[in-house]
Amino acid sequence: MTTIDLNSDLGESYGRYHLGNDDQVIPLISSANIACGFHAGDPDVMYQTVEMAEKAGIGVGAHPGFPDLDGFGRRKMDLSAAAVTHMVTYQIAALAGFTKTHRLHHVKPHGALYNAAGKDLALATAICQGIKAEDPHLMVYALSNSALVTAAQNLGLPVAQEVFADRNYQADGSLVPRSQDNAVLHDPDEIAKRTISMIKTQSVVAVTGETVPIKVDSICVHGDNSAALEIVKHLTQALKQEGIAIKTR
Amino acid sequence: MTTIDLNSDLGESYGRYHLGNDDQVIPLISSANIACGFHAGDPDVMYQTVEMAEKAGIGVGAHPGFPDLDGFGRRKMDLSAAAVTHMVTYQIAALAGFTKTHRLHHVKPHGALYNAAGKDLALATAICQGIKAEDPHLMVYALSNSALVTAAQNLGLPVAQEVFADRNYQADGSLVPRSQDNAVLHDPDEIAKRTISMIKTQSVVAVTGETVPIKVDSICVHGDNSAALEIVKHLTQALKQEGIAIKTR
Amino acid sequence: MTTIDLNSDLGESYGRYHLGNDDQVIPLISSANIACGFHAGDPDVMYQTVEMAEKAGIGVGAHPGFPDLDGFGRRKMDLSAAAVTHMVTYQIAALAGFTKTHRLHHVKPHGALYNAAGKDLALATAICQGIKAEDPHLMVYALSNSALVTAAQNLGLPVAQEVFADRNYQADGSLVPRSQDNAVLHDPDEIAKRTISMIKTQSVVAVTGETVPIKVDSICVHGDNSAALEIVKHLTQALKQEGIAIKTR
Amino acid sequence: MTTIDLNSDLGESYGRYHLGNDDQVIPLISSANIACGFHAGDPDVMYQTVEMAEKAGIGVGAHPGFPDLDGFGRRKMDLSAAAVTHMVTYQIAALAGFTKTHRLHHVKPHGALYNAAGKDLALATAICQGIKAEDPHLMVYALSNSALVTAAQNLGLPVAQEVFADRNYQADGSLVPRSQDNAVLHDPDEIAKRTISMIKTQSVVAVTGETVPIKVDSICVHGDNSAALEIVKHLTQALKQEGIAIKTR
Repeated sequence: MTTIDLNSDLGESYGRYHLGNDDQVIPLISSANIACGFHAGDPDVMYQTVEMAEKAGIGVGAHPGFPDLDGFGRRKMDLSAAAVTHMVTYQIAALAGFTKTHRLHHVKPHGALYNAAGKDLALATAICQGIKAEDPHLMVYALSNSALVTAAQNLGLPVAQEVFADRNYQADGSLVPRSQDNAVLHDPDEIAKRTISMIKTQSVVAVTGETVPIKVDSICVHGDNSAALEIVKHLTQALKQEGIAIKTR
Repeated sequence: MTTIDLNSDLGESYGRYHLGNDDQVIPLISSANIACGFHAGDPDVMYQTVEMAEKAGIGVGAHPGFPDLDGFGRRKMDLSAAAVTHMVTYQIAALAGFTKTHRLHHVKPHGALYNAAGKDLALATAICQGIKAEDPHLMVYALSNSALVTAAQNLGLPVAQEVFADRNYQADGSLVPRSQDNAVLHDPDEIAKRTISMIKTQSVVAVTGETVPIKVDSICVHGDNSAALEIVKHLTQALKQEGIAIKTR
Repeated sequence: MTTIDLNSDLGESYGRYHLGNDDQVIPLISSANIACGFHAGDPDVMYQTVEMAEKAGIGVGAHPGFPDLDGFGRRKMDLSAAAVTHMVTYQIAALAGFTKTHRLHHVKPHGALYNAAGKDLALATAICQGIKAEDPHLMVYALSNSALVTAAQNLGLPVAQEVFADRNYQADGSLVPRSQDNAVLHDPDEIAKRTISMIKTQSVVAVTGETVPIKVDSICVHGDNSAALEIVKHLTQALKQEGIAIKTR
Repeated sequence: MTTIDLNSDLGESYGRYHLGNDDQVIPLISSANIACGFHAGDPDVMYQTVEMAEKAGIGVGAHPGFPDLDGFGRRKMDLSAAAVTHMVTYQIAALAGFTKTHRLHHVKPHGALYNAAGKDLALATAICQGIKAEDPHLMVYALSNSALVTAAQNLGLPVAQEVFADRNYQADGSLVPRSQDNAVLHDPDEIAKRTISMIKTQSVVAVTGETVPIKVDSICVHGDNSAALEIVKHLTQALKQEGIAIKTR
């Protein structure tokens, strides 16, 4: 039976600030990327989110980001390679402390760290060294075909290549930047159909018409608003009808 | 052979800010209390300090504090018990991520958290629950006779009761507050003699003359200025002459 | 014509985190207490909130709090008097920088700082010195009959004594603590009637039956959820029907 | 009589962390660039530094930086133009709150913000808009010939073009990057002679031999270590002997 992993960013609340619909998203997905207190999340939120994810039996992963709460980790910071490595180890280890086994399932860099690591092999390598220092068995979630995939493979870390259900692709396999009008898909039906096609064909049709080969180990979905939740619900039903099981790797 | 543990607060630098003489203190002590990024320390400093301590073969411990860098963790904050528990787990786990085995030797709360935990059993218990969640074998460093000793024992955590080489005591076994003139001892010879007496008699003479029974599992020393360093050097030589070995527990 | 000031806490969003319904509250009130970046708010939010408040012609005030974003300024911190004075000046001055005239209308301490200043004259004085350093004409919003009123008057600062529309009072004029069941009123009609009575009689009936004299210069209202908004709308209509105009002092 | 302004970065301590020799530098210079709490400095340090600078009668300026204490503002952050504008206003206004008149003499961006603003006109313009919002009479300190000069002039802000006493220059008038061996001069006598030559000729000889025209309104000096202090002392004596008075603009 074909299986696919669905991952989503969770635990992004902070103190008095509530963000996301974690309780509604968790039943729909198989892997959680949990913020670690640098760009979002605090120790209380981390504890609660890990507990929810463990109860649901989904993969508990760390979602380390730049130390920039005001920018939600979405603003690139020029950190030294050593600083990146150490801040990644710090965040992963802190999150692991809240799990029962103190072992995580995976790590997915967040926001600007994720985007930059997709193109910058030195940065991606610094991230992966921070991951390996914590646990060489941790699976790295990385944009399909990106520098982060290469860095993780170079260091012998397991990799899950991921695609975005609701984002358009360019001919080189990169995402259409959010600054462009056609960056994001909104129609739940179109999103579900295209996602299933990506899983089955391990390719995607770029906005310019080319068929681009991609590796689809995991699908990233969002749940931070009601429209996003509807998209995930529709997608999970469509996957069920196709006989594709949602399962962590 | 009589042995005694000497512990000191290390890794208190932060970014561009340098504090302490860790490289000179480490050869003199047997246990390091390393800041975890909330009141002092950053991921780079934590990495480097753990590496130095591991090379020297001394006990690597976590030194969690209140989330107050500007106040260096010395200003009491009214956190909920849950917030204390989770911030302690977070800090300990983050530091453990930098060690080779991901296991620490001990935990000693810092500053205002340490002081408050000495008198407030509920707070002390919240701290110990955060420690136990990370690792029930972690040794808790606590002021001799304090509420933190009780809390750790209640939860089944191993405890090292510590005394301060350079601080005067009151008749109830508590430290003379720093607001009083006679709070701190300055004469290296007097400090060494009194410390050895504390180890041998497991008691201390209070400023008001009473002999107060204390448990002396570890001696806390400071190394953040040259006078403090001289005191530690003098103490370690005096211990050697007495045939007392400096050794972690 | 009788007039009354209605004040509300605004500008409590932070980066990606949205809090409150500022755009809906502003048309209903006459004075805004705007967060200054320590417990809530960031420079972008402060700029936008000041702009909205100035357009609406309401009094623009600063809402300084403890430096504790994770605790939303609701956790008491033991700061020195000097640290309180300087952090208050810092926050007020920063907010004033976003106004057209660089002069504010008032200052109201936030959360744990407000609560502690109501009972601790030394802390209240430290706050008022920070306010006076920025501008001796700034009006201090303070709980009616509290130590903050005394401190402000001692330093010659103008004071607006405020009451809470939706909170019950004790016989000594202090608020029933939130830990008690009857701390908060919920019925919009009861709240409106009691508020109008407080304005007209300058007194309130305590939960234990006593009539307590209070000075009612301003009414504090909340707008951070839909029920709270309904209460404010109902109150403003009731005030209109009574011929009481809503106007800043 | 020829006069020249000497400026230096001050107030870079933070909480328990002490940095710099402000008390020794202040008597030697005519303008202080004071950190505003984002990359260094805290409200207590800001208060004390402003007080020292005002007593000495030197120009009190703001030294705003990126919100990155761990990186000391030396790591570039990709902020939106609006975020830059508002964080600059915030920091300047906060510092001004500690001065007697609530008016500053100048603003000089710090670290990575300064470096990036030297080349990026959009960023430089965003900074200058933040300055102008606080006070259109504030003098902008900018690297001679840089984009920050252009941005300030475009917005009608007064500008002081500055040179670095101890840095080598490239043929295009930019500084030799610190990554190169010959970036920094160390010989106090050479530094003094070259600085006086720069003042007299309004030009500098690049490391590649070209004579580069520069505008020398102010000289930036450092005092954060004893060698740096010696350089400043030597320079001020040399200026005296040349009959050049040290005076703020």
